Amino acid sequence: MLTNIEHIGIAVRDLAQANALYTRLLNVPPYKQETVESEGVTTSFFRVNQTKLELLEATNPDSAIARFLEKRGEGVHHIAIEVDDIQTEMERLRNEGFILLNEQPKPGADNKLVCFVHPKTTHGVLIELCQEIRN
Amino acid sequence: MLTNIEHIGIAVRDLAQANALYTRLLNVPPYKQETVESEGVTTSFFRVNQTKLELLEATNPDSAIARFLEKRGEGVHHIAIEVDDIQTEMERLRNEGFILLNEQPKPGADNKLVCFVHPKTTHGVLIELCQEIRN
Repeated sequence: MLTNIEHIGIAVRDLAQANALYTRLLNVPPYKQETVESEGVTTSFFRVNQTKLELLEATNPDSAIARFLEKRGEGVHHIAIEVDDIQTEMERLRNEGFILLNEQPKPGADNKLVCFVHPKTTHGVLIELCQEIRN
Repeated sequence: MLTNIEHIGIAVRDLAQANALYTRLLNVPPYKQETVESEGVTTSFFRVNQTKLELLEATNPDSAIARFLEKRGEGVHHIAIEVDDIQTEMERLRNEGFILLNEQPKPGADNKLVCFVHPKTTHGVLIELCQEIRN
């Protein structure tokens, strides 16, 4: 089951500058920053009610975010939808003909298991499914 | 005050096709469809918890959505943030140096007053402020 729009990921070139600007825009500072080495990204999180805005800066030039910035420039990179059972939703979407970018859920930022759905099967929107890791 | 990520607007070329696909993706049908003549757009709404996904199809070739599709292709067009007092937030953002695309709030879809913030002042993200019209 899809339970929430968990966050919206926004690719930026300079995280410090974007943090300052989004603090003025949203009138609230980011509540945490985190580097995900495996994805080559540093992220920063702002909360607006039950949905977060996640700013993403590349930490290396081969990362997905660096490639996105090169191709498209700054802007919305993905929409993350929280699910209660990521394996069940991945199976459901595969059966519906969606192309998943990872075969198994993988660790993402913010203590989540994530899976991406290819934007060519979703009218140009990169969708992330995410599920909180229960410790 | 910013109170919620009200919706995410997604530009699509064929609304009927996108409605069918997002119904499969989200496992829920759109709950309403609406044409906003002044914006040259037909919209369709899906609900995921407290945030909506709004699919946008151009109804004429001079509309903002038609121009966006031509330039960028399908994908996320804007993020709409609900505010409790749109005039106060517009004033606050103007004073913070953001460029607003309309001087006064204007009627949008879904019984809202809206104002857009120029993406060149927000790291490439078109932000909509919206406030429910109280009848």
